[in-house]
Amino acid sequence: MLHPNVEAVEYQIRRISILIRHHTRELLARYELTLPQYYALIHLLHERLTMGELCCRLFLASSTVTDLVDRMERLNYVRRVRDENDRRVIRLEILDEGRDIIKKVMQDRMEFLSARLNEWDKEKTEVLIKILTEFRELLEEE
Amino acid sequence: MLHPNVEAVEYQIRRISILIRHHTRELLARYELTLPQYYALIHLLHERLTMGELCCRLFLASSTVTDLVDRMERLNYVRRVRDENDRRVIRLEILDEGRDIIKKVMQDRMEFLSARLNEWDKEKTEVLIKILTEFRELLEEE
Repeated sequence: MLHPNVEAVEYQIRRISILIRHHTRELLARYELTLPQYYALIHLLHERLTMGELCCRLFLASSTVTDLVDRMERLNYVRRVRDENDRRVIRLEILDEGRDIIKKVMQDRMEFLSARLNEWDKEKTEVLIKILTEFRELLEEE
Repeated sequence: MLHPNVEAVEYQIRRISILIRHHTRELLARYELTLPQYYALIHLLHERLTMGELCCRLFLASSTVTDLVDRMERLNYVRRVRDENDRRVIRLEILDEGRDIIKKVMQDRMEFLSARLNEWDKEKTEVLIKILTEFRELLEEE
């Protein structure tokens, strides 16, 4: 027997994810960035990954990721560097321009969400955070 | 000035999306389906799209979508058919096996979420639905 409210919860979560993803995609278009490129830059923000590792993180085929990295290298967002411990290994390094783009997109996202939340009263936002935190913990249970 | 709670809201939403996407990906692995294939099948559930239309819907390059469709055609999830009004146009049609897979994945998703919600008391789920509905409406405003 399914929980009587499961469809309502699933529907709201799905719609909210679609709305946020849609908005992010519009933001990225301003910077001529695609969603997979954006995710790739986020994964490279704190570590130098090999192409293989990046493919795994993005769940994309190696040919797709090669195209994506080639384009970002031409835009000066990333570069290929040799691993310091093993010169045979090539790693991807995010460059200042790539870092700036990610910062701007994140800032724009926050401003959009912030403008919307400003229309709400304080109590509502607090209810939202409290219940979302509990819901996330519920989903995280093993 | 950013709303004081915007980071908390953004964080919870992002984590919940990641958890759900992660769970969906695990489910799909059981059926040997990738996330882009799953999204493609969902888009084909109620309409026969051309390859170009499917590329637009998935925001993926035409070469990536061609590979993805070829693999799903071999699995008997979709087939290429000629448009009835314009024989030069090829459309993609979902087959019974593709439809069954989508139904099973959706059912599994619902069962997972349902099992989790059953651990909560009724009032909490009601608070969650009410505030998520209001939050979705807030995001949908023009």
